[in-house]
Formats: sequence, structure tokens, C-alpha cells
Amino acid sequence: MKAILIINAGSSSVKFALYATQPELAAKPALWGQIEGIGATPMLSAQDAAGLRYREPVHTAGGQAEQHRDALNHLFAWLAANNPALDIVAAGHRIVHGGELHSAPVRLDELVLRELDGFVPLAPLHQPHNLRAVRAVAVMLPGIPQVGCFDTAFHRSQPPLAQAFALPRAITARGVKRYGFHGLSYDYVARQLPEVLGARASGAVLIAHLGNGASMCALRDGKSVASTMGFTTVDGLMMGTRTGSLDPGVLLYLMEQQDMDAKALTNLLYKESGLLGVSGISQDMRTLLASPAREAKEAVDLFCYRIAREIGSLAAAAGGLDALVFTGGIGEHAAPVRAQVAELSAWLGVKIDAQANAAHATRIDAADSRVAVAVVPTNEERMIARYTAEVLKL
Amino acid sequence: MKAILIINAGSSSVKFALYATQPELAAKPALWGQIEGIGATPMLSAQDAAGLRYREPVHTAGGQAEQHRDALNHLFAWLAANNPALDIVAAGHRIVHGGELHSAPVRLDELVLRELDGFVPLAPLHQPHNLRAVRAVAVMLPGIPQVGCFDTAFHRSQPPLAQAFALPRAITARGVKRYGFHGLSYDYVARQLPEVLGARASGAVLIAHLGNGASMCALRDGKSVASTMGFTTVDGLMMGTRTGSLDPGVLLYLMEQQDMDAKALTNLLYKESGLLGVSGISQDMRTLLASPAREAKEAVDLFCYRIAREIGSLAAAAGGLDALVFTGGIGEHAAPVRAQVAELSAWLGVKIDAQANAAHATRIDAADSRVAVAVVPTNEERMIARYTAEVLKL
Repeated sequence: MKAILIINAGSSSVKFALYATQPELAAKPALWGQIEGIGATPMLSAQDAAGLRYREPVHTAGGQAEQHRDALNHLFAWLAANNPALDIVAAGHRIVHGGELHSAPVRLDELVLRELDGFVPLAPLHQPHNLRAVRAVAVMLPGIPQVGCFDTAFHRSQPPLAQAFALPRAITARGVKRYGFHGLSYDYVARQLPEVLGARASGAVLIAHLGNGASMCALRDGKSVASTMGFTTVDGLMMGTRTGSLDPGVLLYLMEQQDMDAKALTNLLYKESGLLGVSGISQDMRTLLASPAREAKEAVDLFCYRIAREIGSLAAAAGGLDALVFTGGIGEHAAPVRAQVAELSAWLGVKIDAQANAAHATRIDAADSRVAVAVVPTNEERMIARYTAEVLKL
Repeated sequence: MKAILIINAGSSSVKFALYATQPELAAKPALWGQIEGIGATPMLSAQDAAGLRYREPVHTAGGQAEQHRDALNHLFAWLAANNPALDIVAAGHRIVHGGELHSAPVRLDELVLRELDGFVPLAPLHQPHNLRAVRAVAVMLPGIPQVGCFDTAFHRSQPPLAQAFALPRAITARGVKRYGFHGLSYDYVARQLPEVLGARASGAVLIAHLGNGASMCALRDGKSVASTMGFTTVDGLMMGTRTGSLDPGVLLYLMEQQDMDAKALTNLLYKESGLLGVSGISQDMRTLLASPAREAKEAVDLFCYRIAREIGSLAAAAGGLDALVFTGGIGEHAAPVRAQVAELSAWLGVKIDAQANAAHATRIDAADSRVAVAVVPTNEERMIARYTAEVLKL
């Protein structure tokens, strides 16, 4: 059976999935899994549609690049050994940065890869791993077509003002602008909105993608008009370990008064802040919601408050608020977070039904809510599979 | 005649004013002026209530601290020589940073000054000059009581969530939180709101202080509940030469990819960005509004767009929007900016009367506007004079 291999290569993990393409693109993967812990104790775990589970250690060596290459090679060897029934005819990749021009997925060749190499300085923590995976597939499965799906692409419909920083023109011209991310998730969710929201789907809609990474997107007519993540994935909402928006003067203070350099600041802003930093307990929303500690409540309260503030800001970008949609791990499963955000957004006419919310129903707005409120599970891997099938006309 | 000397000592200027206190605190200063260009070609300019104008060069020498001291000494000598009719019985100072505890003006003594010295790292560009002026007055006019009026004090009523960054608790404990600024202006304007807005003054009110520095404040019951400036005065709205909010990842990029250090970044964010950086033409709104250049329009459009986004965010903090108040140089005089901001805020029910707006009337909302819109001139020096008289029971 022919299949598309989906690869999502991050800084310490490689996620993968195989989607059968015949007679049509399957709704669920035939096999999926990940290698986690690259750089520490890498481990491959996977499961297939029949429920079989796999788990084995992965041996890697050398520097970061070599360790990622070893992990990818292990994955390909494992796939060849454990998956004789599927014939991989194409690969689709999540690629974090598509720059200013890519507003859609694109077939990857050496020319495009070299262009995407140019965006490594804009996303140094992710882009190199994304592109390494593409080149590894080209070596291991020579000749199969590959498609790049960009986290930034969905946001290229934003008006220039929404993408601009108030920086000197010369710096903006170097590409320092707001790209927005989580675009694969927003596109996947947006495509389901007509069914969930009816006519409101083409109005002013905010999607909150709340996971360990978190962002929000304002849509008009199903297209992105603004988003909370900016030039990088650290901006906007408070996240599991990331600060979100931060007065740039705080960085100047930490540099000058606390002698922190770029590496220390990157670690602080990306790894030690957010829910983890404020609570001092955990980056995991489930743990915090279950904790009786005051610090846990403070972290959750700040998380919800920052979402409510950004809802106001994004409603301004969208020119109103017809619907609010939750997705992502927290958005789909943390009913208390949705309830608190709704409470803080009551001034906009948001009112949820407590029972529907507790049940994680698709529509959770109360009968007298002026704003539709929905919970729509996201699926970035499936979006990549769809894009890949579309681009290659599979 | 007894008078209060008001001092507002900035990084390159010292502004001053003398308010007579008998029979009661005068509404207008008897004498006011400034020394500008400290560090370059310092020049004293002043005028008095009778319309007399003064202008003379100021000689300074040495390092930055010495130059400021020279400028202050020149000012005191000039006051003694040119102002025989006024007997200075007290001094009131604008002090940018009052830390977490000062929620009101305070009489200054050596103990308080030493406490305020501790906030120099939080506002290194302003606080040292503010405190130097206090100590210079103590030398030149020994024994007169002095009062410190803090830009941060008005915002201490904000709930903890509005003051918090999503940073690790240990860093927050060092005082890295959102203080808010322009508090003297907000307090001055807020005290006039019952007369201008009636009952709405105690509702959800946003004040936009738009000048070369610009910020906004959300009020409930006349008290600050959130503001756009944060830990420093570079956060929030786009300004004359400051970026306002900026993805912290942009700073990491500029450090790592463009080898910029804290000094270069400070210069970029505070001096080369904002209206000046985006237009490439001027930091002056009047110049930009008069310019036919596309770049000028882009800068003005971004300025207004950022205000509109923050209006949404602050409305979330205030739980709605009953009134929108413009103040500051741009807020009081730039009718096209007010019109554009109102247009972008139509979704909140903001609608202005074009004629009233063009005439800079006190109330500029249209008859069918759901939100009251007002233009209220600010006067920070007069606020300092009032505070000083209040604290000292003059």
C-alpha cells in the first residue's frame, strides 16, 4: 500500500507518521511515533493502527547535528524493518520558517532547500533540524518527492501593519518582521470551522492554539489577519516554559545589570519561564490545575489573563469577535482554563455552558452568548499529509 | 511671594517651573523654562507670566554627571538673578521610579533618597538625573522641603496579574515587573474626568497619553488597572523614537546574528526606532502628517494600528470601554491620529464627530457613539505642584 511519510523534526525529537494514500488519503495514520530525548537518552516509540506498540533505545553519537542524523538513520532503518506493508512514495515535512514569500506548501528541491537555509538565522533552534530531515530522506529514500509545509505560511495573508515592528526600515528590510507560527494548526482548524460555526466562520474568529507552545490567531473570512507569535516563537502568550511578550527593556536590564549573554537569555526566555517559571512547580497545565499550591494558581491565572488581554488585542485586529475557538493540548482538554478565559472575556459577550465545557463538547457557548465558542482538535500531521497529497496530486 | 519650584530633570534636559502658592496654588506658573541640549550645546530658555522671554547659553564641562550638575547650578544662579520676586519655599520633583511600594508622592530626605538610589538599575537613563537634581537643590537651597512625585505611583493600584511577567519567580522577586509610567499625567487627567465624562468617569476608561513618549492606561473607578508601559519606558505603544512592544526574540537575533551589544540595542530601541525609524523622515508627528511620502504614511498608520490593538487589550483589562480620552502633544493636537484610532476602534462602539475632532473640542464623540471620547490637556508640572502643596500642606 502506498503511503506518505510525515516528518516533524524538532530540536530534541523527531515525530513521524505514515498515511496510506489509496484509495484516498487516510484519515488516520497507519503507523506513527517519535524519537524523543535526542541529546540525552534517545528512545524510539511508535504504534500502529492495529494497536501494536514499539519501544526501543536509539544509539547516537557526536555533536548535535550528528546525533540528529543518527536518529533519522535509525528511524529509516526501523521503518524498513518494521513496516514491510507500506510503500513510501512521498514525504511531507513541517518546516518552521518559510520566510516572507512562501504562503503555501512547496515541493522541495535543492534550489528551494538552499533558499530555506537562508532562514536558519531567523529560527536557529528549529530550521536546521527541519532541513536536515529533508536531506536525510533524500539520501535514504532517493527519488521520492518531498513537500515542505511552513508554520509561517498561513499568516502571509496578514496586512503589512500586522506584520510590522516599529524598527528602522533597514532592519525591517533584513526580514525582522512578525511571521507568526502554528500555521499548520490554524489552517487545519480553520478548514473545519464552516461545519462548526456556520456563517460565523467567515466573520471575526479567534483561534487559541494552547499547548506547551501557545499562540492565538485572528481570522477574517478564514484568513489570518494577526497573530500573537511574532518574529520568533517566544512572543505573545505565556507558554509552558516561554515568557511570551516581554518588555524588551527587561532584556537590556538583564544584560547590563545581571551580565546575561544571548545564550543565557535564550535559555531563560525559552526554557525557564512561562508556567514553569511562574509556578516553580511544573510546565504541565494538568499538574498545575491539580496542585493546591498558591504558586500553581498564580501561574494558571496569569496564563488565562494574558490570553484574555490578547483576545482584546486580536479582536481589534479582526474588527470584532464572532467566535472563539480553542485547540491544542490545553485548549482541547483544560476545561478550567477555557472557563476562566471566557469569564475574563465576558465584556465581549463570551459566555460558555458549564456542562458543555466540562464535557469538552464541540460547541460550548451558552444559549445567550453573543460569541460562538468551540473546541476543535487540531492535527498538524494530518494537515501536512493533506498538503503533501495536494501539492503532489497523489 | 512664596513659590514652589518644580524640577523635571531628564537625560539631556532640565525643565522647571515656579508656581506661586499664595493665596492658593496658582493655576499657571509665574516662570517656566528649560535647559536643553545637555551633553551637546546646552541652552537655557524661559518665559514668565508677563510674556518676557529669556534665552542664554549654558556652559558645562566634564563627564555626564558633571555636565548635569553644571546645568543645575547655572539654573539656580539664573533663578536667583532673574527672579527676585519669588521666594522658593519648596521643591517638587518628577522622579521616574518609585519602585513597588511608593503609590503616592513622598517628602524626600536622605533615607528616602537612598532607597530611591536603589531603583537606578531599573531606570538607568532617568533615575540618576532625577535624584541628582534633588541633591543639587538641597545644596543650593538648603533646608527647603522637597517632594518626590513618581511616574510609577499611579499604577500601584493595578492587580498583581497586570504587573506580572511570565518570568521565573526569582527574577520577579528582584523587581522585574510591570511598573507603568506617565503616572503624573494620568493622575492629572483622571482628576478632570468626572467633569468631562460624568458618571462614565468611574467606568472602564482608557487614557491615551500620546507624545514623543507614548503610553496608555486602563482605569476602573478612576484607578489604574493596566498600562502599556511595563518594566521600562520602551514597552507598549510605538513612540517618536522608541519601538514599543517588541518580540524579545528580535533582541536575541540582533545579539547573535548582528553582534549588537546592550549599548547598541538600547540606542536602537530608544533612539532610532518608532516614528523616526519607520518613516526614515522624522520623529515629529506634525512633520509626518504634513508629508506626502509613503514612508510617512506607513509610520502614522502603524502608530495608530498599535494604539488600536492596545485599546483592545486594555479594554480586556478594564472589562469594557465606556470612555476613551486623548492627551499629550499628539493626543491633544493631532486630529487625524484621533480619527484613525477611532475608525479602527469602531468595533467597540467608538464614533467621533468630525467637526468636534477637527476643533479639538473637549468631547469629540458623535451623538450615536456608544463610547465617550474626550480630549483633555495634561499638565505634569501642575500635577507635581499640586502634589507638593498637598504633601507639605502649603
